[in-house]
Amino acid sequence: MERIPILKLGQFLLVTIQVDMHDQLAMTLQDDLTARIVKDRARGVLIDISALDIVDSFIGRMLSNIAAMARVLDAETVVVGMQPSVAITLVELGLSLPGIRTALNVDRGMELLRQSVEGGGAGADDGREVA
Amino acid sequence: MERIPILKLGQFLLVTIQVDMHDQLAMTLQDDLTARIVKDRARGVLIDISALDIVDSFIGRMLSNIAAMARVLDAETVVVGMQPSVAITLVELGLSLPGIRTALNVDRGMELLRQSVEGGGAGADDGREVA
Repeated sequence: MERIPILKLGQFLLVTIQVDMHDQLAMTLQDDLTARIVKDRARGVLIDISALDIVDSFIGRMLSNIAAMARVLDAETVVVGMQPSVAITLVELGLSLPGIRTALNVDRGMELLRQSVEGGGAGADDGREVA
Repeated sequence: MERIPILKLGQFLLVTIQVDMHDQLAMTLQDDLTARIVKDRARGVLIDISALDIVDSFIGRMLSNIAAMARVLDAETVVVGMQPSVAITLVELGLSLPGIRTALNVDRGMELLRQSVEGGGAGADDGREVA
């Protein structure tokens, strides 16, 4: 099961991260996700991290990379489901998630993506950028 | 990370099974899922098994149990994303997934659930029952 499933939700893709990430798995996820964005003509990517107790610099970099890759493929990325403790640790450690928008849960993330897509990608006003 | 995240998608819940299931994890999932159905007043449950290469009798029983529990809480269960090889093996082994409806992917599963909910639970005509 060394592959993270990517689910299609309308014009968006959903990835739920449940297992410990390591280099190879992160690479596979990037490959799979970019391929799926193109194949499904996805306009947005939702990454659920509600199962993660820790977001370290490795995970942070992976999320940033995914968001950057999705962006050049004309898809927005929203990270959803962050646990309160993760948010606290991120700020305390001074880790930023550059270029990543976040939303409380999948529903809100989809709403955010829908607004962005309908607004031609300009409607970033509702997104919270972790800085 | 010994907990499978449950995502809310509108009035439905989505569970993606990515890790090897064992007794304790299955119990936790049942507890969490039934609690969430009540808390979120969910009308349906989508279980994505696209990451599973094997569905044995243990997984089959777990899915049936979840579907039965959801049913008494007035929520329908649809299993989505089954791999072709899993379907072949299920039939070859004579394993049935009693009471479980299946759909090709999350999008179709949601459509199926929507029809069921709008049809008052009677619209089972579009569902494929694995028998």
